[in-house]
Amino acid sequence: MPPIAPRIAIVGVAGRMGRTLVAAVEQDSNATLAGGVVEPGSSLAGADIGELAGLGRRGVVAADSLEAIVDDFDVLIDFTTPRVSLANLAFCSAHGKRIVIGTTGLNDEQLAELDGYRDRVPMVFAPNMSVGVNLTLKLLETAARALGDEGYDIEVIEAHHRHKVDSPSGTALKMGEVVAESLGRTLKEHGVFTREGQCGPRSDTEIGFATVRAGDIVGEHTVMFATEGERIEITHKASSRMTFAKGAVRAARWVAGQQVGRYDMQDVLGLKG
Amino acid sequence: MPPIAPRIAIVGVAGRMGRTLVAAVEQDSNATLAGGVVEPGSSLAGADIGELAGLGRRGVVAADSLEAIVDDFDVLIDFTTPRVSLANLAFCSAHGKRIVIGTTGLNDEQLAELDGYRDRVPMVFAPNMSVGVNLTLKLLETAARALGDEGYDIEVIEAHHRHKVDSPSGTALKMGEVVAESLGRTLKEHGVFTREGQCGPRSDTEIGFATVRAGDIVGEHTVMFATEGERIEITHKASSRMTFAKGAVRAARWVAGQQVGRYDMQDVLGLKG
Amino acid sequence: MPPIAPRIAIVGVAGRMGRTLVAAVEQDSNATLAGGVVEPGSSLAGADIGELAGLGRRGVVAADSLEAIVDDFDVLIDFTTPRVSLANLAFCSAHGKRIVIGTTGLNDEQLAELDGYRDRVPMVFAPNMSVGVNLTLKLLETAARALGDEGYDIEVIEAHHRHKVDSPSGTALKMGEVVAESLGRTLKEHGVFTREGQCGPRSDTEIGFATVRAGDIVGEHTVMFATEGERIEITHKASSRMTFAKGAVRAARWVAGQQVGRYDMQDVLGLKG
Amino acid sequence: MPPIAPRIAIVGVAGRMGRTLVAAVEQDSNATLAGGVVEPGSSLAGADIGELAGLGRRGVVAADSLEAIVDDFDVLIDFTTPRVSLANLAFCSAHGKRIVIGTTGLNDEQLAELDGYRDRVPMVFAPNMSVGVNLTLKLLETAARALGDEGYDIEVIEAHHRHKVDSPSGTALKMGEVVAESLGRTLKEHGVFTREGQCGPRSDTEIGFATVRAGDIVGEHTVMFATEGERIEITHKASSRMTFAKGAVRAARWVAGQQVGRYDMQDVLGLKG
Repeated sequence: MPPIAPRIAIVGVAGRMGRTLVAAVEQDSNATLAGGVVEPGSSLAGADIGELAGLGRRGVVAADSLEAIVDDFDVLIDFTTPRVSLANLAFCSAHGKRIVIGTTGLNDEQLAELDGYRDRVPMVFAPNMSVGVNLTLKLLETAARALGDEGYDIEVIEAHHRHKVDSPSGTALKMGEVVAESLGRTLKEHGVFTREGQCGPRSDTEIGFATVRAGDIVGEHTVMFATEGERIEITHKASSRMTFAKGAVRAARWVAGQQVGRYDMQDVLGLKG
Repeated sequence: MPPIAPRIAIVGVAGRMGRTLVAAVEQDSNATLAGGVVEPGSSLAGADIGELAGLGRRGVVAADSLEAIVDDFDVLIDFTTPRVSLANLAFCSAHGKRIVIGTTGLNDEQLAELDGYRDRVPMVFAPNMSVGVNLTLKLLETAARALGDEGYDIEVIEAHHRHKVDSPSGTALKMGEVVAESLGRTLKEHGVFTREGQCGPRSDTEIGFATVRAGDIVGEHTVMFATEGERIEITHKASSRMTFAKGAVRAARWVAGQQVGRYDMQDVLGLKG
Repeated sequence: MPPIAPRIAIVGVAGRMGRTLVAAVEQDSNATLAGGVVEPGSSLAGADIGELAGLGRRGVVAADSLEAIVDDFDVLIDFTTPRVSLANLAFCSAHGKRIVIGTTGLNDEQLAELDGYRDRVPMVFAPNMSVGVNLTLKLLETAARALGDEGYDIEVIEAHHRHKVDSPSGTALKMGEVVAESLGRTLKEHGVFTREGQCGPRSDTEIGFATVRAGDIVGEHTVMFATEGERIEITHKASSRMTFAKGAVRAARWVAGQQVGRYDMQDVLGLKG
Repeated sequence: MPPIAPRIAIVGVAGRMGRTLVAAVEQDSNATLAGGVVEPGSSLAGADIGELAGLGRRGVVAADSLEAIVDDFDVLIDFTTPRVSLANLAFCSAHGKRIVIGTTGLNDEQLAELDGYRDRVPMVFAPNMSVGVNLTLKLLETAARALGDEGYDIEVIEAHHRHKVDSPSGTALKMGEVVAESLGRTLKEHGVFTREGQCGPRSDTEIGFATVRAGDIVGEHTVMFATEGERIEITHKASSRMTFAKGAVRAARWVAGQQVGRYDMQDVLGLKG
């Protein structure tokens, strides 16, 4: 039986996401900070992972391999690279551990490899672990179904920092897809990504996207449903990567009580079905 | 069997809400503008109700009693006063009509009288017919259940025009109640309606309200769920009374196909259960 | 010497803008509703202009020519068509009247014709009479000068109703121009009107535009100045054409005390220099 | 003659604000990171101040007294405590240095002591160094003067994190004061800090405040000017303490070229007069 407060280990505790994950586990009274790993050969092996995270000494020392802490943890959290995550997934499978993977950028082959573990280890895999973003997707589905055939225009507005290279954001596209799917539309056909000059009145079924790039905005997304007389706006604002870290810890607590299987954040949050 | 495009009559077509209702029926291709009533003895009896609404001639003339148009309509829409609405409800019951009532301010006795017709006439009765507000209540319930125990602070912010006399608005209170109920809390215990001076840090379970009064704001409501790293905001903005009129027409179309019973907007929108 | 409460006449009192102008004059205790004109031959000549505006009888009757009311007014307000406005301008010039023109769509020839009256009649001519929009332009100039060289990214976001055919709005472009000019940039060179796909990080000097089209939004404009650590947002929201009508009445009151000359809203508001 | 890129030293480089100040100097190509001080006896004396700030080695070592770096810097930045700041001010006065003080909480006696140096050292002293907040105050003054007598309702809305103990925020009050003063009103008489229950319609001259407390909001302030038909909203959003650090570095660069005198951020930003 899984412990009430599962023992959590974190990969990459010297990096920015790793340190944020350490802080998120520390804040959660239902999770225990049990271990951390740095790259093999790192000069930081042996450092206190609380101090690495700027939290002060916690009495848990960074190891330079999972083997070194194999008896210490129940669930591993991994936001690294596809190759490292797949190796750690194999390790968890071999040692009866659970795992939460927030790594992005897996190619099709790597996704297939990951999926091959679905019958061997309890894992949560999701490209965006934010509780709020995943809840927002659910809210959008509900709203689109209620409003879709009643003359509401749908627009997605997103804002990110000046360094972001793609537009619209992946999350904005995902939001648009959820709405489109709920209405039997597709973004390929109904998405409108640019408006410039004399483009004429809006069509009834288009889903428009507007993009802002400025300053240090971590990530803001609004989906607007507007008709004559009213608007509903569903907005998510991320203020720090802590939102992803907290989602990961919530996933770790949840997966500690699950059978083998591949899960996503909708499972964790109980938003399916 | 009710017609696909039910024939709708409107009470008070010379008033501002009545004229808006006429416009809303006109815009809806699944509803037929079938009649309108003005006060007995009004000099506007005999006027074209399209012209009264500023839409141009529609060939439907304002009557000064329901009796005069009893054969012309299937569903009556009534946003008037408690006394007038109850009389019209009795009329609909006696003549096999359906009714949508958006009148507010009924006292307990009047509410009981209205409720007495629940087994005799198909009626929709709701103090706020806005589709968006009613959908928002549903979204709030979903959000509160997903986030409530995970350290999200909840705040309700509302803005209305300078003439509004009560704070917070009835709709803001309703939103707060839906959230509180979903979390096993009560506004009586957890609602915080004022913050001034050295009031100390926020408690985990309070539901805060902030009120803005300015200009001609028709009505804006936001419920914010915020934690470290992210915020979800669910916002409704009314821009005209058309939002209430369109909800009423939607209710009229829906109730045209219902058995006797007392329904509200959650029924109309299929948001129950 | 001009009267304290100038007598104002309005062209086109049967139309939507005309009726709004009548209401705006009525609300202003420093202006007198003195006359109104409908098209020659209109069946509404002789109607009370208060009743036409839905305000109840005011004892001022719609005329079907300016000649008929030439002795009744000091300032004419005209939101019509280029041809009508130019004819009315000639009339005002011939009869010692003042005029406020909010008509849009004048071509270069018509603009030249209008300008020919600058030494013959006190006139205010502005395509957007909103006090708030004109103030916003002033605020943008101040903000751009203070922030421009300090690493703030500038974005313009605008939202309008579903029927608007051009993007970005003329007002959004005007806002962008004011900002660009304050910084020695041009929209031609630095304006970015679309972002789609892998467009790379934002440049330091670009001025981005994002456009939303939905529902019945009258007009919302935000200019954002964002850098690491903070954002300033200057927002204008129009909620009805009353904003343009009130600006026009303010202009009428102001021009009642001016010498001949062609003025704009920055003059009226005292925002120049 | 002051150097183009003044040499800046920072007090308290081991603390959160000190580390942010180090990062802000590093980002500014017109400023040179010249020194840093930690508390006397700190074990961090001798550490590289770039490494302390998480930026990597910069070759500048933390000293444990100002005396130790007296020849290295032109301007000192100090966000510490009243007592420490006053001692450092005396040091700067004695050694021909300039100083920027962002410390808050000085009592009247301490303020008088600080003011005693106004003829002996070029100093910038401001409780909020954010460029954006100070610009916002200027914009509010302009807006209030243009709109104040024209029937615009004024409201201040602010949101902060769950730990903030006072309402409204000091910055919100300052914004309200600037507006009130521009209109010949006072917050004492016209400020409305709570609205609850049947409070009746809004008065024409009141300045309302609404307060939100939730999550990790660093600080958001909006002042709304609303009338029939339009709203102007001037908003400042702080996303990190970097906004205060960057303001301080801007002040340091500016004061490097000034004569003795006590200045504030309005001076630095050229917003006076």
